[in-house]
Amino acid sequence: MYVVLGASGYIGSKFCNDLHSSGCEVVDVSRKEIDYTNGFVLKEFLKSQNTRFLINAAGYTGKPNVDACELAKADCLMGNAVLPGIIREVCEDLKLSWGHVSSGCIYSGRRPDGAGWKEDDVPNFSFRSPPCSFYSGTKALGEEVLDGAENCYIWRMRIPFNEERSPRNYLQKLLNYDSLLEAENSVSHLDEFVQKCLECFDKEVEPGIFNMTNPGSTTTRQVTAWMHEQGLTNKLFKFFEDEEQFMNKAAKTPRSNCVLDTTKAQKAGIGMRTVGEAMRESMGKMAEASTV
Amino acid sequence: MYVVLGASGYIGSKFCNDLHSSGCEVVDVSRKEIDYTNGFVLKEFLKSQNTRFLINAAGYTGKPNVDACELAKADCLMGNAVLPGIIREVCEDLKLSWGHVSSGCIYSGRRPDGAGWKEDDVPNFSFRSPPCSFYSGTKALGEEVLDGAENCYIWRMRIPFNEERSPRNYLQKLLNYDSLLEAENSVSHLDEFVQKCLECFDKEVEPGIFNMTNPGSTTTRQVTAWMHEQGLTNKLFKFFEDEEQFMNKAAKTPRSNCVLDTTKAQKAGIGMRTVGEAMRESMGKMAEASTV
Repeated sequence: MYVVLGASGYIGSKFCNDLHSSGCEVVDVSRKEIDYTNGFVLKEFLKSQNTRFLINAAGYTGKPNVDACELAKADCLMGNAVLPGIIREVCEDLKLSWGHVSSGCIYSGRRPDGAGWKEDDVPNFSFRSPPCSFYSGTKALGEEVLDGAENCYIWRMRIPFNEERSPRNYLQKLLNYDSLLEAENSVSHLDEFVQKCLECFDKEVEPGIFNMTNPGSTTTRQVTAWMHEQGLTNKLFKFFEDEEQFMNKAAKTPRSNCVLDTTKAQKAGIGMRTVGEAMRESMGKMAEASTV
Repeated sequence: MYVVLGASGYIGSKFCNDLHSSGCEVVDVSRKEIDYTNGFVLKEFLKSQNTRFLINAAGYTGKPNVDACELAKADCLMGNAVLPGIIREVCEDLKLSWGHVSSGCIYSGRRPDGAGWKEDDVPNFSFRSPPCSFYSGTKALGEEVLDGAENCYIWRMRIPFNEERSPRNYLQKLLNYDSLLEAENSVSHLDEFVQKCLECFDKEVEPGIFNMTNPGSTTTRQVTAWMHEQGLTNKLFKFFEDEEQFMNKAAKTPRSNCVLDTTKAQKAGIGMRTVGEAMRESMGKMAEASTV
């Protein structure tokens, strides 16, 4: 039995759907039904469900964006840093294999040598390496809390997208925003992310941290060019002059823009398609769906 | 009715004793009886007790020292950073006046201008200003979570001591250690700290942050000299050569050594005796008790 925490969320629901589609038995848990922030409650629940694998897709993301986390610091710390520690303790007790949805947003830019950030690079966009958003700070603390955890996958996602018209889809966000910030980023095709994370269990990949983004990177201007190319929109996108103007006009807390190295996941057999391939396909599908 | 959270602890029990002695009605709450980390439970409990004032003396301190916090990061974050936020929300809902026991250990040394750290100085021994211990990091986050809280006193303590033979008493610790680290610190006479914190409610002091240490500072060598002077011990104390030797031999995580400015508390009418006066009296009483 698979148990998914945070099953009602954007990422958690995708895990549930994928597992259902594959014919797996899955229990989707929302915090309203089971208070999984209580280690004792969580442990008894996992035992009662005969759990084989646990996926923690619960976490505190601000709505509509990370700025909201600055106003809900305790909840953000609880969901992103304390909860992983509670789950760790329970899973180690029960000798359960599990995965935690982390984020690449604990980095900024590229490594000093120009390469993408590797799994064991120390975060440079965290409380310990300011400046950072409160959200990124708590996600980095979450990974720190999981340091040395047994049978635990830490899956780092960055900027989820796919072909669905969800307000959480990066492509949909770009279509909705008035002005965009030019920046280079790694990104994760949501469905592919989920599929490859789940393969960790099936393929018995060695536990640890994995950068689960599509290999390579892209820039905002590149993404909008692909949108035009794929016929998704004719919109002439406006861009902020620079990050300073973006911070003044549209943001309260700094954003992570970063490039991750995906060599480790590729070598482990859980690599994803390149950014260009995945993005253009999603855009093409979106364009097709809107013309039907 | 006064409600004290963390009433079984070193500081919380002192609050309870002081209130009892003064003839106040007090409910001492331990987390085993009431899960006050659940905001709903806490709120109903406070209402049922007709609470007028709440004191949060709960928190996660490592035993026997802060090194232990490095191995219990989720618990430490929960107790020191998340819990204050939960209490804040409940107290603001109920329009309750309350106080949070914080710590001066979010600072290191003195201000660049040589003065002690004031209440509104940004912490320089925290996650956002590394290096720090995990404990200090969580205490600084706790204050950040309480930024702008209504009707809330943040009482910063540093290195509690008094005349009791408790293993938590700084003077007793110095007597027990094999070797000492020479450093300059502000310190808090525990009983006086508690008494002055409680006066905030009685005197209706304007809420905010207060450095609740005895005015001035002392050094480890000064403390041991006073011990000899007061006849508390004849022991010839050994000292580490320097902080590096101390870190190599006796500590896993860096310690805060700092001097706080107490002008704000003094002006508010909740000032304490000088370090020398308070310490020597405690030592004299300890010496007296051991010769009886």
